[in-house]
Amino acid sequence: MNRENRVSVTVIRRLPKYYRYLGELLKKGTNRISSQELSKMTGFTASQIRQDLNNFGGFGQQGYGYNVEELHAQLGKILGLNKVYKTVIAGAGNLGQAIANYKGFQDAGFKILALFDKNPKLIGLRIRDLPIMDVDEMEEFIKENEVDIGIITTPKENAQDIADIYIRAGVKGIWNFAPADLRVDDDIIVENVHLNESLFTLSYFLNNRQEYVRD
Amino acid sequence: MNRENRVSVTVIRRLPKYYRYLGELLKKGTNRISSQELSKMTGFTASQIRQDLNNFGGFGQQGYGYNVEELHAQLGKILGLNKVYKTVIAGAGNLGQAIANYKGFQDAGFKILALFDKNPKLIGLRIRDLPIMDVDEMEEFIKENEVDIGIITTPKENAQDIADIYIRAGVKGIWNFAPADLRVDDDIIVENVHLNESLFTLSYFLNNRQEYVRD
Repeated sequence: MNRENRVSVTVIRRLPKYYRYLGELLKKGTNRISSQELSKMTGFTASQIRQDLNNFGGFGQQGYGYNVEELHAQLGKILGLNKVYKTVIAGAGNLGQAIANYKGFQDAGFKILALFDKNPKLIGLRIRDLPIMDVDEMEEFIKENEVDIGIITTPKENAQDIADIYIRAGVKGIWNFAPADLRVDDDIIVENVHLNESLFTLSYFLNNRQEYVRD
Repeated sequence: MNRENRVSVTVIRRLPKYYRYLGELLKKGTNRISSQELSKMTGFTASQIRQDLNNFGGFGQQGYGYNVEELHAQLGKILGLNKVYKTVIAGAGNLGQAIANYKGFQDAGFKILALFDKNPKLIGLRIRDLPIMDVDEMEEFIKENEVDIGIITTPKENAQDIADIYIRAGVKGIWNFAPADLRVDDDIIVENVHLNESLFTLSYFLNNRQEYVRD
């Protein structure tokens, strides 16, 4: 694929949103939808939506719109949601437990195998049917179970050490909730959830209501 | 301010990142930094950084770079972090408790006053020094205490009801963790944290390693 044909990260970040809306339409029994109707739902312009989706192939038909079921399935495939991923969580505090308890991730194919912590009070407990294990056993566990994705919900101070274990053990991707920028090899995919940054964006908008344009 | 002078949301979302990096430099005792050095830290190009910061005034000096302390303070002010915000959390499950326990938000001026839930087993308990109260008392509490920001960590099904209470009670902004799109008046700022979308972006990149360009 040429650089020109590659898709921008901004577009990619909109795909999960389209996928979610299409899933809702599917539940309601909607068969087809126009880019104009999708625009009303998502807040993106109709031309933006057509452009975004054209990056991945000509899904829509002039005068007909999009077939909801087909587009939903195709986007799911593009997002890699037609597979099952094995994951573990490092950090079994509130945030780790919240993720372990959230059924939506499992339903989407992200199978959590275990949580890990260094706190002796937590080790041995269970969250739903998932064990909390000693973080010292994590590397071995990941290798044996061929875990794909490592989730980090530890304090900032421990995040890089956990990332190093994940990389040694062979995970392909890291979902990082610690407010730290991880140093990893180029072939490891890191997705950060920086909650501070989201909160600060909210406070920006509270203080600067008119001074921005949507894009 | 003309539309032409307004700042794009994409730029605004980068400001908290600059703010965080500058805070780290400040801790290390760094006095000044060039856009090239900031580029290495943040992964954005030097010209992108200069352009972003120029939106808010000419902070840098040719051949000198940026004064770290000054730029950090200015960005903090632009982000509205020179104020204190009163917040409450609706949903005292794991995620709500995780947020209540995270000291970073308090340190940045976001003062959590209470958590609310409808579960009788949770009502009356405390998270740190914060009470978990009955959600039926929330509207009154928000009015009396002039709460600025309402946080939603309930299941998806309850999110709109909570948002409606927040709006009636007069909050100005909502930080929403429920995977639902809230219907609110135009004058209410909503910042969504859609964790599903973040996870799906990770799985996209795991499956399409080469086929994107950073932007």
